[in-house]
Amino acid sequence: MIYADNAATTKMSESAVNTMVSVANMSWGNPSSLYAYGQKAKEILERAREDISRIVGAEPDEIIFTSGGSEADNQAIRSAAEIGLKKGKMHIISSVFEHHAVLHTLEALKKDGFEITLLEVYENGIIITEEVEAAIKENTCLVSIMYANNEIGTIQPIREIGEICRKKKVLFHVDAVQAVGHIPVNVVEDNIDMLSASAHKFHGPKGVGFVYARKGISLSRLIEGGAQERGKRAGTENVPGIAAMAEALKESYEKMEDNASHLTKMRDRLIKGIGEIPHSVLNGDAYKRLPGNVNYCFEGIEGEALLLLLDDRGICASSGSACTSGSLDPSHVLLAIGRIHDVAHGSVRFSLGEDIEESDVDAIIQSVKEVVDYLRSFSPVWRDLISGKKQFIL
Amino acid sequence: MIYADNAATTKMSESAVNTMVSVANMSWGNPSSLYAYGQKAKEILERAREDISRIVGAEPDEIIFTSGGSEADNQAIRSAAEIGLKKGKMHIISSVFEHHAVLHTLEALKKDGFEITLLEVYENGIIITEEVEAAIKENTCLVSIMYANNEIGTIQPIREIGEICRKKKVLFHVDAVQAVGHIPVNVVEDNIDMLSASAHKFHGPKGVGFVYARKGISLSRLIEGGAQERGKRAGTENVPGIAAMAEALKESYEKMEDNASHLTKMRDRLIKGIGEIPHSVLNGDAYKRLPGNVNYCFEGIEGEALLLLLDDRGICASSGSACTSGSLDPSHVLLAIGRIHDVAHGSVRFSLGEDIEESDVDAIIQSVKEVVDYLRSFSPVWRDLISGKKQFIL
Repeated sequence: MIYADNAATTKMSESAVNTMVSVANMSWGNPSSLYAYGQKAKEILERAREDISRIVGAEPDEIIFTSGGSEADNQAIRSAAEIGLKKGKMHIISSVFEHHAVLHTLEALKKDGFEITLLEVYENGIIITEEVEAAIKENTCLVSIMYANNEIGTIQPIREIGEICRKKKVLFHVDAVQAVGHIPVNVVEDNIDMLSASAHKFHGPKGVGFVYARKGISLSRLIEGGAQERGKRAGTENVPGIAAMAEALKESYEKMEDNASHLTKMRDRLIKGIGEIPHSVLNGDAYKRLPGNVNYCFEGIEGEALLLLLDDRGICASSGSACTSGSLDPSHVLLAIGRIHDVAHGSVRFSLGEDIEESDVDAIIQSVKEVVDYLRSFSPVWRDLISGKKQFIL
Repeated sequence: MIYADNAATTKMSESAVNTMVSVANMSWGNPSSLYAYGQKAKEILERAREDISRIVGAEPDEIIFTSGGSEADNQAIRSAAEIGLKKGKMHIISSVFEHHAVLHTLEALKKDGFEITLLEVYENGIIITEEVEAAIKENTCLVSIMYANNEIGTIQPIREIGEICRKKKVLFHVDAVQAVGHIPVNVVEDNIDMLSASAHKFHGPKGVGFVYARKGISLSRLIEGGAQERGKRAGTENVPGIAAMAEALKESYEKMEDNASHLTKMRDRLIKGIGEIPHSVLNGDAYKRLPGNVNYCFEGIEGEALLLLLDDRGICASSGSACTSGSLDPSHVLLAIGRIHDVAHGSVRFSLGEDIEESDVDAIIQSVKEVVDYLRSFSPVWRDLISGKKQFIL
């Protein structure tokens, strides 16, 4: 199997699994318990918080553990909205190609009376800082922009947007689920007020994530109950999972430079190879993208058929976000960067992992070429295109 | 170490750990992915859903996985409130001694304009069905009563309350976090409409739980985002954790009768032994309580000092809920059953696990006797009591 869907989820690292098992077997006390065995779990929890905060440039008490990236996005955005509401500021700026954890939370807030401005993105899949600045109004309480897009991998000018937000005194939330563990993210240098991350995107366990909120920004509770996480998130802490997340993040940071350099080579090789297929187009900027991300559209084929045939050949890829797999709608991200409906349907995303080798990349290229050829051979759309009945777009 | 705080959290069973590791290492795909490797994870997820639903008497599509009991409580109650709101029914009945995940959610709903009736409990710690019936009004949308209390272990007349709710056409939610895996719980036989459970209370992993909602009851989303869990709970599913929860629940059910019979014997031995200490009182009904739960108050001592000295002797116990440990307020549960402030402060809860042996119980009894004697020997309150300056209550 060549697994090229690391943006959907990653395999847990050996040491993250070992950490999870060791804590589950040896230090499984409730960290809220007063006896020494509970306090041992508490120490592990707080050490994980220190490790994670240090890596992203935060203070330990600026980190709240959640059940994953979606919960973190929901909590950060709802908290900022609540802070805004108290000041009579009910305008939020985001972009059309955010993850649904952001977009759907914003839709819910719209029903509560918030005004939502979703910035457009252009063909390169990168938000224009000046457009963020222009959109900020007197009553703007929050700008929420993702660090790197989950489908096309494009990296946003976070630091610059953050600078604008600081200047305008508007809270800045960053969904960094695809970025943390893969590219350098530092909440101080990047001028970030709130940030969401998810462990299973960087070889940690599923069901664990964290939200960062800069000191002085009060998080609202999404889950009410006990006083865990300084009263900001109820529920017995998943200490084995949290410790495993910290372990995975430490590893990711140690290997980040080497991985990024290797993955960039592999990515560029894959981009070049697939680019040889006629009437194909790379989605998103060729350089300002995550090291392992390749996303292509092909004219005259259905992305889903492509994926199933690649699966038959042992290649795991996706048409976009796993969270919306099976949906018949084309990707909102590809529509956002200007792909028309038909073209957006013929997409494939490869998100490479650190173990990928040149021979794997070449095998992917070979398979994609063959499968695209094969699918086009009996595609009525393709027949219309080559006969001139329809015009090529790509 | 004698671990007697299984109501706070339990050690994961060996087979639950093995399941978690095996899924994390072998079937770590994203269950939303279309390729075979993702679908393998999806199968594991759905098998877990079938196993769990069968055990609690539900249908698979009546189960939604959550990050734990608190999230499940929050989601169930908020969903029922939203259903009520649509019908103009904004009255909710619960009890004063529910878990904070229930009480704090109800407080939040009160701020949104809901009327909340919290039923009193009497000294035996058991809700009176007739009082539930009497409290139901035309505009009642929900009754939420816990299956077994987390501090004093008393088991509520769930079936009877459920019958009343059915008759009156009011939704019935049951926080069964302390019951599932320990005593028989069946949503059909018990007339339950919505139920919350948490894996780490029955030897499953932390950070995993589930909410049951009877067919036709629409759950509202607490976490917005992707379309996981039939659109009711966003976020990549924690498949290793969910599979481990199913494994732990199956085991718990297989061993339930034997465990309950053993634990009841151990519990009664412990109740009897500690009961020999003068001026002590068992909290909650002596028989209608969880097999492993023993909760005592002692006059003239501080519970926290008692716990720390027991900890020195290798005995892990708590004064009540771990979720509120460290708080200086006395337990709301003990106040609810009529203990006055001073007495409620001198409490200890033992929640025994299946591995407990007679010799452990005897060691606990011996230690409690010695420690209570020791603490009383320099307690000014105790001095006042024995000199007659103050009146004994117990």
